[in-house]
Amino acid sequence: MTDRILNYLKENDVETPVLIMDLDAVEQNFRQLRDYLPLARIFYAVKANPAPQVVDRLFNLGSSFDTASRGEIELCMSQGVKAADISFGNTIKKEKDIAWAYGKGVRLFAFDSEAELQKLAKVAPGARVFCRVLVDCGGAEWPLSKKFGCSPEMARDLLIKAKKAGLDPYGLSFHVGSQQTDLEQWDRALGRTSQLFFALQEDGVELKMINLGGGLPARYRSEVAGVKEYALAIMRAMTKHFGNDLPEMIIEPGRSMVGDAGVIQSEVVLISKKDAADKKRWVYLDIGKFGGMAETMDEAIKYRFRTKLDGRKSGPVIIAGPTCDSADILYEKTEYKMPMELKVGDKVEILATGAYTSSYSSVNFNGFAPLKTVCI
Amino acid sequence: MTDRILNYLKENDVETPVLIMDLDAVEQNFRQLRDYLPLARIFYAVKANPAPQVVDRLFNLGSSFDTASRGEIELCMSQGVKAADISFGNTIKKEKDIAWAYGKGVRLFAFDSEAELQKLAKVAPGARVFCRVLVDCGGAEWPLSKKFGCSPEMARDLLIKAKKAGLDPYGLSFHVGSQQTDLEQWDRALGRTSQLFFALQEDGVELKMINLGGGLPARYRSEVAGVKEYALAIMRAMTKHFGNDLPEMIIEPGRSMVGDAGVIQSEVVLISKKDAADKKRWVYLDIGKFGGMAETMDEAIKYRFRTKLDGRKSGPVIIAGPTCDSADILYEKTEYKMPMELKVGDKVEILATGAYTSSYSSVNFNGFAPLKTVCI
Repeated sequence: MTDRILNYLKENDVETPVLIMDLDAVEQNFRQLRDYLPLARIFYAVKANPAPQVVDRLFNLGSSFDTASRGEIELCMSQGVKAADISFGNTIKKEKDIAWAYGKGVRLFAFDSEAELQKLAKVAPGARVFCRVLVDCGGAEWPLSKKFGCSPEMARDLLIKAKKAGLDPYGLSFHVGSQQTDLEQWDRALGRTSQLFFALQEDGVELKMINLGGGLPARYRSEVAGVKEYALAIMRAMTKHFGNDLPEMIIEPGRSMVGDAGVIQSEVVLISKKDAADKKRWVYLDIGKFGGMAETMDEAIKYRFRTKLDGRKSGPVIIAGPTCDSADILYEKTEYKMPMELKVGDKVEILATGAYTSSYSSVNFNGFAPLKTVCI
Repeated sequence: MTDRILNYLKENDVETPVLIMDLDAVEQNFRQLRDYLPLARIFYAVKANPAPQVVDRLFNLGSSFDTASRGEIELCMSQGVKAADISFGNTIKKEKDIAWAYGKGVRLFAFDSEAELQKLAKVAPGARVFCRVLVDCGGAEWPLSKKFGCSPEMARDLLIKAKKAGLDPYGLSFHVGSQQTDLEQWDRALGRTSQLFFALQEDGVELKMINLGGGLPARYRSEVAGVKEYALAIMRAMTKHFGNDLPEMIIEPGRSMVGDAGVIQSEVVLISKKDAADKKRWVYLDIGKFGGMAETMDEAIKYRFRTKLDGRKSGPVIIAGPTCDSADILYEKTEYKMPMELKVGDKVEILATGAYTSSYSSVNFNGFAPLKTVCI
């Protein structure tokens, strides 16, 4: 909870549920990462929070942007971002969207498969392409599947093909997993990608860039290391594997840029028990899994809650959303406690909810309006 | 796939992804249920598909409406539905929304807790209220948690209190679980609720209604019994437990009204392997978990897919959505096969997707527009 958000909530009676974004906190996160990792060019992962004001603030600070779709590219450009500062980082793109982006001047594209390479060669001739490599990573709270990336062997083959097809084989990317809490994962990932980097030199393919992906965490319930520790771990791994001839570095922070900078204000709609003998109370908020808290899926991301009664006697609760969907439960297995005196109508703040919330919100499930964002 | 949708897709080159709803099929589902269950008053569960055209068609057929929020009540009323034909069926309501609905003339409300009862007594005096009872049900494909309902003992206590508080204790509701495939669950549930019904008579509380909830299935991958078999099972259980002095009956079908009546047309964005030696292909569609297919969560609902190449040689696939979210995978553990000749740009129809899709769609996750609906 930042002081600015605290003051805003004190002075304004906002209609809940609402996400309050502190743009100064976003700025601070950006400056901090740039200070600690001066060699890396920062591409903000727009998907984490696509509020135009967030994009605008980061644009004014000199950020570049990692985008997932034509929609996100349009959003960035509408805020004045130049095509040269945009990466089309989704490995799954329609050919017509690649062609459109190329027509707008975008020249940096991700890929991880032969079919995507063919599209790029056809409609984005000469563009810089980077191949996403699968690295086997533990320690991430939001699990990373094999959905993105290919084996190093396949990546090697594809980058050779990219050169032959008239593209500019520019670099390699990997992703250690979102909300990654194990600093050593960057060493492991950079070990694999640097081997591939050098192997490709032997093939006559001179890559120029390593894309470090995202993965830097926001603070939810567990303590996490600070950005300084992450930056040091990354630079230690980079110099260990590349020596002093470092390639260009790109980093794509999303969660770590905006997560801590946002707070959702919600309201208790109902507190109940299922039987008089029950020990646990059910606390129903006016926001749930389909109103923006999709990352509570399988209780993966464990948010912190704040009430005005914190510190008073508390008891165990199950926390659920307001829809008629039985799956709309935030935490049932994870132990959460809330004050015994908490009552219907009380406000509950959900901390560090600036990332992966508002844009996940459903259009109108159960007739509830999507989560609103207020930027301060 | 209905003939009307098949013809529509033949004659129109629609931009994907899109949900095509066949309103005649919705009408047929409604008429069939009414024919087989003439004693039950049908309240369509608007949350299953809130397209105004669907509400309009059902309104013209004489349906009543089960709503989850002020938003859904407004939608129904905008289509001409009278307050007397609306049930505010969510057990989790803000007091101001109850007051609003009561002001509009709504007189039928669900509840399952003391705190909700207090709100109703305060702002909806004299209204008919029904208490949702927890019944322990297996056999449902979309799992039902303990989120809704209370123990029969608590329900008995609450309905006595409702009478004292000046409300009209009108009935009991239960829910056997969405996409319930075990016909015997109605017998089990009605056994428990009828006991409670008679126990309350001894307390001087004369209930008048049994709300059978939803649960009737749509057909996904598994064969399910027809509406006739469900209707017979329900009536068998009703007469077994209530004899020939049957209370009023309400049923709240959602999935079974609209599920089969909708087809999503999508497009293959990418087909790839992660390594040359992989046996399984990854097939990426332009719709995924956050574009409307939320019920693939934990691979719960298993949709059927249709391509123009069905019948040709097929092979195993993992099916995923187009976003940069690693959790946006539809089916990885469940075995699915698709034609070996399937290629990027081919259309893939996802059958029986008329329920719980369009309204679940995220506002703009990854910059993708929400799922559009075309009603024919």
